[in-house]
Amino acid sequence: MDTARILSEIAEEVRPLVGHGRVADDIPPLADVPRDRFGMVVRTVGNEVFSVGDARERFSIQSIAKVFSLTLAMRLEGDAVWDRVGREPSGTAFNSLVQLEVEHGIPRNPFINAGALVVLDAVLSHQQHGQDLVLDFVRRASANPSVGYDVSVAGAERATGHRNRALAHFLKSFGNLKNDPDRVLDAYFLLCSISMSCAELAAAFQYLATGGISSDGEEMATARQVKRVNAVMLTCGVYDEAGDYAYRVGLPAKSGVGGGVVAVMPGRFVATVWSPCLSEKGNSLAGTMALELLTTKTALSIF
Amino acid sequence: MDTARILSEIAEEVRPLVGHGRVADDIPPLADVPRDRFGMVVRTVGNEVFSVGDARERFSIQSIAKVFSLTLAMRLEGDAVWDRVGREPSGTAFNSLVQLEVEHGIPRNPFINAGALVVLDAVLSHQQHGQDLVLDFVRRASANPSVGYDVSVAGAERATGHRNRALAHFLKSFGNLKNDPDRVLDAYFLLCSISMSCAELAAAFQYLATGGISSDGEEMATARQVKRVNAVMLTCGVYDEAGDYAYRVGLPAKSGVGGGVVAVMPGRFVATVWSPCLSEKGNSLAGTMALELLTTKTALSIF
Amino acid sequence: MDTARILSEIAEEVRPLVGHGRVADDIPPLADVPRDRFGMVVRTVGNEVFSVGDARERFSIQSIAKVFSLTLAMRLEGDAVWDRVGREPSGTAFNSLVQLEVEHGIPRNPFINAGALVVLDAVLSHQQHGQDLVLDFVRRASANPSVGYDVSVAGAERATGHRNRALAHFLKSFGNLKNDPDRVLDAYFLLCSISMSCAELAAAFQYLATGGISSDGEEMATARQVKRVNAVMLTCGVYDEAGDYAYRVGLPAKSGVGGGVVAVMPGRFVATVWSPCLSEKGNSLAGTMALELLTTKTALSIF
Amino acid sequence: MDTARILSEIAEEVRPLVGHGRVADDIPPLADVPRDRFGMVVRTVGNEVFSVGDARERFSIQSIAKVFSLTLAMRLEGDAVWDRVGREPSGTAFNSLVQLEVEHGIPRNPFINAGALVVLDAVLSHQQHGQDLVLDFVRRASANPSVGYDVSVAGAERATGHRNRALAHFLKSFGNLKNDPDRVLDAYFLLCSISMSCAELAAAFQYLATGGISSDGEEMATARQVKRVNAVMLTCGVYDEAGDYAYRVGLPAKSGVGGGVVAVMPGRFVATVWSPCLSEKGNSLAGTMALELLTTKTALSIF
Repeated sequence: MDTARILSEIAEEVRPLVGHGRVADDIPPLADVPRDRFGMVVRTVGNEVFSVGDARERFSIQSIAKVFSLTLAMRLEGDAVWDRVGREPSGTAFNSLVQLEVEHGIPRNPFINAGALVVLDAVLSHQQHGQDLVLDFVRRASANPSVGYDVSVAGAERATGHRNRALAHFLKSFGNLKNDPDRVLDAYFLLCSISMSCAELAAAFQYLATGGISSDGEEMATARQVKRVNAVMLTCGVYDEAGDYAYRVGLPAKSGVGGGVVAVMPGRFVATVWSPCLSEKGNSLAGTMALELLTTKTALSIF
Repeated sequence: MDTARILSEIAEEVRPLVGHGRVADDIPPLADVPRDRFGMVVRTVGNEVFSVGDARERFSIQSIAKVFSLTLAMRLEGDAVWDRVGREPSGTAFNSLVQLEVEHGIPRNPFINAGALVVLDAVLSHQQHGQDLVLDFVRRASANPSVGYDVSVAGAERATGHRNRALAHFLKSFGNLKNDPDRVLDAYFLLCSISMSCAELAAAFQYLATGGISSDGEEMATARQVKRVNAVMLTCGVYDEAGDYAYRVGLPAKSGVGGGVVAVMPGRFVATVWSPCLSEKGNSLAGTMALELLTTKTALSIF
Repeated sequence: MDTARILSEIAEEVRPLVGHGRVADDIPPLADVPRDRFGMVVRTVGNEVFSVGDARERFSIQSIAKVFSLTLAMRLEGDAVWDRVGREPSGTAFNSLVQLEVEHGIPRNPFINAGALVVLDAVLSHQQHGQDLVLDFVRRASANPSVGYDVSVAGAERATGHRNRALAHFLKSFGNLKNDPDRVLDAYFLLCSISMSCAELAAAFQYLATGGISSDGEEMATARQVKRVNAVMLTCGVYDEAGDYAYRVGLPAKSGVGGGVVAVMPGRFVATVWSPCLSEKGNSLAGTMALELLTTKTALSIF
Repeated sequence: MDTARILSEIAEEVRPLVGHGRVADDIPPLADVPRDRFGMVVRTVGNEVFSVGDARERFSIQSIAKVFSLTLAMRLEGDAVWDRVGREPSGTAFNSLVQLEVEHGIPRNPFINAGALVVLDAVLSHQQHGQDLVLDFVRRASANPSVGYDVSVAGAERATGHRNRALAHFLKSFGNLKNDPDRVLDAYFLLCSISMSCAELAAAFQYLATGGISSDGEEMATARQVKRVNAVMLTCGVYDEAGDYAYRVGLPAKSGVGGGVVAVMPGRFVATVWSPCLSEKGNSLAGTMALELLTTKTALSIF
């Protein structure tokens, strides 16, 4: 397989889609990102890296960061994390609040916002004295101490995040936040503001393709935990498009409203892609097509 | 890997669970099935067959049959089948009817009852003069002309299936059934009544592990179709337990209320298991545990 | 109060609205009704009758008939009828099916279709040998043996009523229909097809303004039952517009998709109005305005 | 009608119910109220006052106060208030949040918590420099400057009101709060903490029975506004029990979780009742029974 050539072909074939769709304009700094960007990286478990386009430009990883906090919470709390959050797909978007109410404050899964708040609340209970466990995890996973928050993005989300604020208070009313809602929200807005490039993300998520070992040789999670994070990504990682993603792409994936997507072929590679314009469901339009082309052209998928 | 030994261990380890849970007592003939049955088969793509327990006793495959009708509909209609049915997980159980209403008669996926009725309606539009396309497909896939319906089961479901009758009329009210609701219902009750053993099922589903080729060498579906059927099974195959199944078992699977489950490891094997007592979510209790043990002991899963 | 003059004024003032809105075009014979009709009757408890416009032209009373069957069921079964149907407003339209499912087959109230099916099922359990208790009740209430069904309307609804058919089977699946669904549906389609004029309806509903006594002096219900039927009309009588009707009109009322509305001022009068074009919520557009003008001009309402 | 005797009978007949049910134990000061209290007042439009039991003991009026703020908002904003809040019953309890989401932040009616927050937000836009328009309105309506807040109750609700906090942020996310959520919440918790006796409440709500005139002769609202407030109370005033209340009591009413209820017979009287133990739906158990007995014994109801 000539991966370099395949990436070139993909970049060519998705070009007509780049710039189409909407950007996440409810968060002002994200609305200003140039719409014409497209970058993609494939990084094999043997540390070969193939890239195309804007693969070294940093963007706001947004919900992709929830994979890091989930992995960390599983390390810190083991299976106890599942007492407070489910791992089932969320069904149609409008149901999330119903479900939270019907299911008495237990979010359906760790990747919807309510679930991510609960997972982060679990991590915060282990975090003291100004340390920042999630950011530290990301830096170690990527062997890259320069990864950090974009405080202008975090600030913008803090100013406009009324719905997330509502979710946090709702969770608190059910007793499913241990920390003060404002503390959890501040950490959440920072988490989502992490800024990384496709190349950096591919390095950081190496552990999901290798059974837990980072590109630097550090054990970020056990093989059993990795298998399970991948399973949760497959069923819950791309908002309400899980079924369609599995059908078209056929890989566990996690997307963010900044236009990034990470996909994992266990035992083989991590693929990352970034293009800021989104489908109606909130996933990168060109990015999704690029991943579909990747599994089609390589004939590699988990199915 | 010593598959025979692993199956023996599994049979031993799940024994305490066998007989626990409920049987599908709303369908009288199913309520009479002995509760203590357990059988399991692993059939590799090389046609090696390993089995344990009641692997040759026939049972009512129920919803497992929906995989056959979906494959057939994809062959007959191509992607057009997705105009009439989605491929997203159904969320919480109680939502299925809401979703059908909110989404104007388009069922969420082909494995919930409403979706299976639509898929069967598509097949019936190609079926004439007493031929029975789905049963014919099953017989060819399994190279076994003796597979057939259990008319006592079909009759019992026809007598008590008020909810399925409601669904069919509801779909008709949205214009999403082309045939007469009674014709579709009759075919549906027959489809669910198909009776097969674990060994027969493993042979019949060989095509999902081989990229489309039956144990007899016949092409039952294209590689692309197989990949997609497996993806839909992973996200929608086990009722509201898709996330939990992916997390624990890590294989595409389809279950039925008769207590059977089929799981696929693409390129490697098909595993079938049967034990009639069900979890609260409607999946075989001992069967699910057996599949979880299989992927744990073999360290093989798609993740 | 010069009622005759008030009715003339009302007819004048609503004229610009007459013919605007949609007719119930899913039932073919109703779609053919001339859109320009408007008739209104006020009938006092002293049997004075004031009318304007097309007050003597018959139309399909549709859901208005559910008031007759509810009154009759309360006579036949007493408070036991409320074991099988609630008396709470239905909330937003799309919830009716959810609620039926969440509330295990107990319809929210006797005026939504599911509730009317259950009420009619209760009446049918008392009905034998070809007698027709509801039609008999209507004829006695209106002292008018010529009132009857419009079989062409009933036939059209039978042919297209897939959603009602779905509801009946759904109720049966919960055990909340005692008779065969098809028998209940046939009776339901006939019930809704009853054809009466504003003048005939005003006579028939006299008993709701008089504490139970028909225009002919017969006791159709007890004072206590009448008070309660009026209460249910106020909270549940006009589909999802109960709050708005109470706010604007301020009288218990029941509407039908044929464009008729009956309103009751207890101790004073019955008002009936007909104009076939409907608001988005399914109530006669000009009819609702006419009733609002009536309570404004007479300064009479229950509030 | 011998009202004094009727009240004595009622007090006697409801005695077995007094103390049964639950108190609103999620608000600590309310949980400490003696469970055995029962008081009732009937105040006619001619200013005759009849009372029985603990009619002069103050209690926390809670949601009853929403009638004052709604009346005031209608005075201040006219019909514009209905652009931001509906007037339809809320359906089943669990739907309130769904509806808020489905209906894009427009609460169903002004008496559910979300609606009361929006109404109060409207009032607050007219309120400056430390004045307190709602409290001022209550004092004038009741001709009683001693009416005030119970700051211990307000403080307890502020500490535990996570769900109301969630609602306020959710409304803000839809742009349906103009003021800062924390300002609206503070005013809301104070509003609900108003402390009054049955006798004081009956005086304060005199204007709803007289077409707008307070016991002191002041015009609190127009006749048209009063008619409409009464209509909204009838359809939306008693949580999810509107239909049952209309059926059993037959009067517009508003209840609070402190165990108080106000009912209005337009043109005749105001009845107030207090008994702290609640039904499952959140309305005073003995209070509801007392009102049902009142309309039964006097044969007076709006139906």
